[in-house]
Amino acid sequence: MSLILAVNAGSSSLKISLFQRQANDPPRLLLTSSTSSISSPPAKFNFKVIDVPGSESTSSGHKESAEADIRDHESAFGHFVETLARYAEGLRRSTQVPDEVRLSLELSQIRNVCHRVVHGGNYVEPVAITEQTYNHIERLSDLAPLHNGAALRVIHAAMAVLPNSRSIAFFDTAFHKHLPAHVAAYAIDQNVARKRGLRKYGFHGLSYAFITRSVAQYLREDPSKLNIIALHIGSGASACAIRGGKSIDTSMGLTPLSGLPGATRAGDIDPSLIFHYTKNGGRILSHKEDAAGEVHISDAERILNTEMGWKALAGTTDFGEIVRKAFPRSVSEKPDDDEYALAFDLLLDRILHFVGAYYLVLRGHVDALVFAGGVGEHSVELRSKVGEAVSCLGFAAVDERKNEGVEEKKGVVVDIGNAGQCGKRVLVCRTDEQGEMARECSAIEDYW
Amino acid sequence: MSLILAVNAGSSSLKISLFQRQANDPPRLLLTSSTSSISSPPAKFNFKVIDVPGSESTSSGHKESAEADIRDHESAFGHFVETLARYAEGLRRSTQVPDEVRLSLELSQIRNVCHRVVHGGNYVEPVAITEQTYNHIERLSDLAPLHNGAALRVIHAAMAVLPNSRSIAFFDTAFHKHLPAHVAAYAIDQNVARKRGLRKYGFHGLSYAFITRSVAQYLREDPSKLNIIALHIGSGASACAIRGGKSIDTSMGLTPLSGLPGATRAGDIDPSLIFHYTKNGGRILSHKEDAAGEVHISDAERILNTEMGWKALAGTTDFGEIVRKAFPRSVSEKPDDDEYALAFDLLLDRILHFVGAYYLVLRGHVDALVFAGGVGEHSVELRSKVGEAVSCLGFAAVDERKNEGVEEKKGVVVDIGNAGQCGKRVLVCRTDEQGEMARECSAIEDYW
Repeated sequence: MSLILAVNAGSSSLKISLFQRQANDPPRLLLTSSTSSISSPPAKFNFKVIDVPGSESTSSGHKESAEADIRDHESAFGHFVETLARYAEGLRRSTQVPDEVRLSLELSQIRNVCHRVVHGGNYVEPVAITEQTYNHIERLSDLAPLHNGAALRVIHAAMAVLPNSRSIAFFDTAFHKHLPAHVAAYAIDQNVARKRGLRKYGFHGLSYAFITRSVAQYLREDPSKLNIIALHIGSGASACAIRGGKSIDTSMGLTPLSGLPGATRAGDIDPSLIFHYTKNGGRILSHKEDAAGEVHISDAERILNTEMGWKALAGTTDFGEIVRKAFPRSVSEKPDDDEYALAFDLLLDRILHFVGAYYLVLRGHVDALVFAGGVGEHSVELRSKVGEAVSCLGFAAVDERKNEGVEEKKGVVVDIGNAGQCGKRVLVCRTDEQGEMARECSAIEDYW
Repeated sequence: MSLILAVNAGSSSLKISLFQRQANDPPRLLLTSSTSSISSPPAKFNFKVIDVPGSESTSSGHKESAEADIRDHESAFGHFVETLARYAEGLRRSTQVPDEVRLSLELSQIRNVCHRVVHGGNYVEPVAITEQTYNHIERLSDLAPLHNGAALRVIHAAMAVLPNSRSIAFFDTAFHKHLPAHVAAYAIDQNVARKRGLRKYGFHGLSYAFITRSVAQYLREDPSKLNIIALHIGSGASACAIRGGKSIDTSMGLTPLSGLPGATRAGDIDPSLIFHYTKNGGRILSHKEDAAGEVHISDAERILNTEMGWKALAGTTDFGEIVRKAFPRSVSEKPDDDEYALAFDLLLDRILHFVGAYYLVLRGHVDALVFAGGVGEHSVELRSKVGEAVSCLGFAAVDERKNEGVEEKKGVVVDIGNAGQCGKRVLVCRTDEQGEMARECSAIEDYW
């Protein structure tokens, strides 16, 4: 039993990677799967073998399909497990795989199932799922209603479908456990804060842990001496100031709502804005007690999490589309209104805020600025514009040839700075939350 | 009719300065008055003659008293006007004032009454009060319920008590009229934003206008070429990035709630925090629609504006007390819990955030970092700690002798940087919102 399943449930997606634990090396990635559009069926299912000996002898090594039977996260997980079992069966039957390289992909070989859970509250280490811990995580979901739910449903499914495997929750908040008290605290009554758990937790922690280790390795530096400003920019976006390998500040807070705008989240807004945004049908907003409207928690959090961000500004969650329309190849393609430019400039502005802030938080002792996440890893234009601005802080100028060539470049970390100049590094890191969980899981002896 | 009354109404205070317009010089400050504790009577009333020829001959040049008849902002204004009239009468009767220096302080000489109004919405210039403009400002108060109300009441009183004077509203938002669109916009639906006026306005504009002019003068620079990071830190606190004399970013937003924490405001918090903070009596917070609690706009805004900030952290709105207890003279005085240190460190941390952010907003082209406001002008420790941190950005080190000597130093602007070093300046500016209004009023020919 040496297999690790790493599961990453988003609000409408499910990404799963299968790893084999190795004695002296990092876990070996065997195959990956992703399911998208779960909440707007038919869901799209993808299954791709990466590195399984003998896989070339089987026909089902890569599969992409629309699946009508996937209705929710539970059935998406079930569908993956069935597909894996069928694939393993085909591999087992193949006579072309030499016995000495044959790998047992049987479900019974899956020892640990790692689940990314967004909000871990006071949990600062991974925790094996029991009835007690499951209930505790469920209660935390009140602070992250739209984030923990999917993970909890998949944990439930995993325990039913793979009863002999251990499910382990890995928390996105855990990496930020060293936030100084004055950074984690809001300027609110601390008795209320303690009682209700109202403080900055920070998120994207698995990604930042992966980035920290990978960048340290790339720069041949001890992680405990690494100082970086990391930007995880995807449909959820955040920034993190990392000193000596530890998070000392990050832009998300009590929930993933704060900080940078995302695809459907506004990021930092005036704390009173939501009350002026969600008025009850036409009733005039008023501060006279008897006429004042009410705002429902559920309404407010749904709007704040799903109806704002660059989708609200430019009508799409696809940042690539925003960039294409904000930077058309010819002037004649430039749209009349500049909602795309507004969305781009707004995100750029807010990113620079945090880079400037964290540069000072780190007192200028910064080894590198690191881009990661879907947008961070793919948006040449965003990296270029950020690079242009931060050169005044002593970062190497972005080499546009390298910047444009990131996709073709192999390796986890790519340097896009001008090598001819000295200066702090500007890097792109292909972050991997599943890989991080597998690695952490592999390293915890108790689980083996 | 050459007198200007400049009126600054806070939530529980009223500050008034009387100026004389001069042909070729800035308005001359004749006397000042302040009333405090209006909402927790008896109110404290202070009346002080600064520069009235012959004033040494009268006995009532400085008066401090508790006044039982001051119950609200209207009666506070009325009390000031009566005191002024009595003082003017005494002066008129005095035979010791030579005719050639005699100044007519008669109420009838007050041509313009300038009122500081916090939220000006789309007004970007001062506006003379008419029924129409009054009503418009009243409607804006919905965005700033706890801020515009007092000013409106004083405007009302001024028009009744001084019917022959013109009342003019000066807006704290006006200085920020040049904010770029992507800075002013939140990442929300722009149709809703336009319809309801939901964008970053910024505040403390009269103070920033004063600071910009004064610092330019001090540095003998054209204001239109001045780049500074200004910090107005008082019981309301904000930061402003000023490029070429114009505000290009500021920390307060739709309302004064965003950005830095203040005496009773939390500053930037997770947009969902208030829903978790204000639960209805014991009802368990839930995201299940039928069980979800409601939050009243009025409750939420009252709590956000009056129950948070360093008062919530350390039990006092007096930042001086926080500093004394956070930095006791001997270790034995150090309190067991460190709520004072937490309040201090938290404010310092958030200030540094904005300094770092605005340094990058200005791309490093910064002439000076400027401290202003009650805390900014008086807290030696805060300036010292900020100075220590920002030296990595090329600011001159704070000279502790100069820093401690600010109170004794004359002039509007004091340099606290180490003169022996080159580096960007670190300045303290004694900001003066009433002076700014008088000056602007004096310069608008239409009003004379």
